Amino acid sequence: MLVFPEKEYKQRIQKTKERMKGEGIDVLFVSQPANMNYLTGYDGWSFYVHQGVIVSLDQAEPMWVGRGMDGNGAKLTTFLSHENIRSYADDYVQSKVKHPMMFVADIIKEKGWGGKSIGVEMDQFYFTHRNYVELEKALPNAKFKDGNLLVNMVRQVKSEEEIRFMKIAGQIAVKVMQTAIDTIDVGVRECDAAAAIAAAEYRGTAEHGGDYPAIVPLMMAGEGTSTPHLTWSDKKYQKDEPIILELTGVYKHYHAPIARTMFLGTPPPLIKEVADVVIHGLGETLQVVKPGVTCEDVEAKWRQAISGTKVVKESRIGYSIGLNYPPDWGEQTMSLRPGDKTVLQPNMAFHIILGIWEEKVGFEADATIRITEKGYEPLYEFANKLYVK
Amino acid sequence: MLVFPEKEYKQRIQKTKERMKGEGIDVLFVSQPANMNYLTGYDGWSFYVHQGVIVSLDQAEPMWVGRGMDGNGAKLTTFLSHENIRSYADDYVQSKVKHPMMFVADIIKEKGWGGKSIGVEMDQFYFTHRNYVELEKALPNAKFKDGNLLVNMVRQVKSEEEIRFMKIAGQIAVKVMQTAIDTIDVGVRECDAAAAIAAAEYRGTAEHGGDYPAIVPLMMAGEGTSTPHLTWSDKKYQKDEPIILELTGVYKHYHAPIARTMFLGTPPPLIKEVADVVIHGLGETLQVVKPGVTCEDVEAKWRQAISGTKVVKESRIGYSIGLNYPPDWGEQTMSLRPGDKTVLQPNMAFHIILGIWEEKVGFEADATIRITEKGYEPLYEFANKLYVK
Repeated sequence: MLVFPEKEYKQRIQKTKERMKGEGIDVLFVSQPANMNYLTGYDGWSFYVHQGVIVSLDQAEPMWVGRGMDGNGAKLTTFLSHENIRSYADDYVQSKVKHPMMFVADIIKEKGWGGKSIGVEMDQFYFTHRNYVELEKALPNAKFKDGNLLVNMVRQVKSEEEIRFMKIAGQIAVKVMQTAIDTIDVGVRECDAAAAIAAAEYRGTAEHGGDYPAIVPLMMAGEGTSTPHLTWSDKKYQKDEPIILELTGVYKHYHAPIARTMFLGTPPPLIKEVADVVIHGLGETLQVVKPGVTCEDVEAKWRQAISGTKVVKESRIGYSIGLNYPPDWGEQTMSLRPGDKTVLQPNMAFHIILGIWEEKVGFEADATIRITEKGYEPLYEFANKLYVK
Repeated sequence: MLVFPEKEYKQRIQKTKERMKGEGIDVLFVSQPANMNYLTGYDGWSFYVHQGVIVSLDQAEPMWVGRGMDGNGAKLTTFLSHENIRSYADDYVQSKVKHPMMFVADIIKEKGWGGKSIGVEMDQFYFTHRNYVELEKALPNAKFKDGNLLVNMVRQVKSEEEIRFMKIAGQIAVKVMQTAIDTIDVGVRECDAAAAIAAAEYRGTAEHGGDYPAIVPLMMAGEGTSTPHLTWSDKKYQKDEPIILELTGVYKHYHAPIARTMFLGTPPPLIKEVADVVIHGLGETLQVVKPGVTCEDVEAKWRQAISGTKVVKESRIGYSIGLNYPPDWGEQTMSLRPGDKTVLQPNMAFHIILGIWEEKVGFEADATIRITEKGYEPLYEFANKLYVK
């Protein structure tokens, strides 16, 4: 079931080890599901219990550690030799007396790494405070370091094969958004539109099946467009409602997000004005995107493009994307905003998302792109405009 | 958009405060999305950034704390007065210099709670180690206590209205599983079956729209049935493949999980034998379920029922369910297994899930029930058998 050639995983592990050396980390415990998948191929919805991948400078292959019943899943989805798949008994799960990190610590001690410098992902969901407490207690001679975002940083620049996956996700994104626009209308229940959208996400194209997204369809209607992260109810869409759709195509956990705005009826002047400013601003912003400019340069261009208009945006205008699992399709590394001085490189990928949320109404448009040698390339084409129906 | 009457949230807050007193906690920082929803109604896919609800014995109403753009979402979905909705500027998000817990600590200090006993959910996903480090640094006079599962414990016994929601989820579960069984066949792509299943989950019934599940459809095929947490690919189903389906109905985040097993072709004797043992064992197990017995009593009955057969099961046979968000529909409190001495009470709810994963083939059956005054009541009816097609 391995998704990439084994060689690609080995290159990723090599890059991770180089970063570990740079940070003075001997052993890295990786608990973020996308990072686990990136390094080993592991794929399963088992991240509701504690698990992880241990990367050690001392050992060529990482080790997968997880729950007993998921061990066969690790055998099926990773390239790891079976001796590097270690699973704990079920009485470690959500127990009052045992904790899975005790099992992880036992492996670290068994391997002779108990006195090493151990990196953990201190601010990743799936690495709880209790995880840290248990590891620290069981490994009194270890020196703990923050390995947060270490693997995420390796993920920033994609391989050609990863870009290919993201373009397939882009093909799916187009189908998903078209399905949404075709389905949503006055009198349709929000949940029925959500059903059609989810089906389009999962189905994918005739050649390439879709996958589950790291964020479910966000589909704000009416007053709900004053905020970006609502889902749906069983209410019916009303006449004269704005609708913001923030959706995605997904292929083997690689994302191509897509956001568009609809209006059912006659849009008021405010939303049309905001749409014009945002779409013009997006076009201006994209013109500066190329290798060598920084994340904050890109945002500065947007800020300049909208200055003097009534559109105000305090929040970042985009972030790095690629492989991900719930709850976030963003990679949590680069953000397009003041202060982020990361220099763009070929095969980085971004979701530029321009969301404007006024007190009673909002508007979103976006572009999902990869950086090329000379500029950028969109992962899909889908006209940015206010979709009036 | 409030889902329950305001009175119900106030009762939940009252029960939470009583538990806080019992544990010596003055101020509780709640970061688990289901717990946040349970106490305030807050509903949004914003849990990919740090957020939480602060409950203080000093103040009647909890406070919601989250990202700026989600503040309007909190206004729309909770009953909280606007002064108790506090949102941080976007430069706290995934920043190298600022952290949302600095903002939470500022509120705690402003309120005069900086020297109090502060509970945090130490082993909940969404409460990272870094969260703890930042709170501890910013609140040097606070005494930190483990408030893990404190609200989850309040959630164990459901209100009548919550049970009503779970029964609606049960109606949806039946439609979802029937859709799966009708759709899956030799030559159908797994992703197309997943699309039909997701659509059934989201669509719900004609009266009640569905919601997104805390766990996406788990649908293992062939050798994949040797493990429980795989999803789907774009492969086509083959003749003579077993398929395990672990699905759910969801209504306003309340779950009624449902697991069944299919076989496309002529099932081998092993799987038929396992199915017979498991289904018989489930029936025996259910006979002891009633208020007053303990979680471990229920499991002991199962163990007795399958003794002497070739079925072996090391893992727990069920857990408490109800309201939830990704990544888990389980409540992480009660487990049906040796050592869990929790006494069953009316309106607790359980997913009894009997998964048997052999080296090359597996089988699952289940029951989703609530405890009644005298015994139990299933949340739905759907025959437990091996579905041969």
